[in-house]
Amino acid sequence: MPELDHVGVAVPNLEEALARWGPLVGPPESAPELVPSNRVRVAFIAVGGTHLELLEPSEPGSPVARFLERRGAGVHHLAFQVPSVDRALREVRDRGGKTVDSTARPGARGRRVGFAHPSAFGGVLVEFVEGP
Amino acid sequence: MPELDHVGVAVPNLEEALARWGPLVGPPESAPELVPSNRVRVAFIAVGGTHLELLEPSEPGSPVARFLERRGAGVHHLAFQVPSVDRALREVRDRGGKTVDSTARPGARGRRVGFAHPSAFGGVLVEFVEGP
Repeated sequence: MPELDHVGVAVPNLEEALARWGPLVGPPESAPELVPSNRVRVAFIAVGGTHLELLEPSEPGSPVARFLERRGAGVHHLAFQVPSVDRALREVRDRGGKTVDSTARPGARGRRVGFAHPSAFGGVLVEFVEGP
Repeated sequence: MPELDHVGVAVPNLEEALARWGPLVGPPESAPELVPSNRVRVAFIAVGGTHLELLEPSEPGSPVARFLERRGAGVHHLAFQVPSVDRALREVRDRGGKTVDSTARPGARGRRVGFAHPSAFGGVLVEFVEGP
């Protein structure tokens, strides 16, 4: 079964969020990274065997910017590590679920990623991430 | 630093949710449990070093029932394992954050738990859980 790679949390300001979470979970693993394919700037913080990914929109109108407008800051997605993103997406569709991505594409940390549609997991946006 | 004990996901129907998540994350660790103090019925599924906790409201008007009415199904809270829930709650207040619980109380799996207020972590409801 896949591991939980990270929990993505949408935040309006990455530096403010790092300061807020720091006392509980410590500093990020590395400097914030711009992920052009998702139009976000992100930082990963290790928490036990998984991570928090803090996501700040890098431009207005981007998916995370729209999420913040609609729902406010909070948990945005859950990411599971899988051997093959293409296969994981296909399996969702084979079960009758929808996917945002039809195949894998480049994500944060140089990893291949793909998103299912929230409706496929009862309202939770699920990302698949290939191992490092 | 604390580990991520579980990700709590609010669902309208626990059995439907277990069927939906099963192909991705497998079966629950044990039979669903009623947690009267939170007015929920829950099931825990191990995912790597952490867990998904699926939460179904056990009565109308309960916090999770109101969450479902207001926001729909989705991630409800993040739970971190800490040595002392009382101390973790006090540290949040010492930093100027609000907490839902002033001290620890009984939660699922016979563990002591306590909730910070979502405003303390930028919109994310954070639960503290003492180790088993």
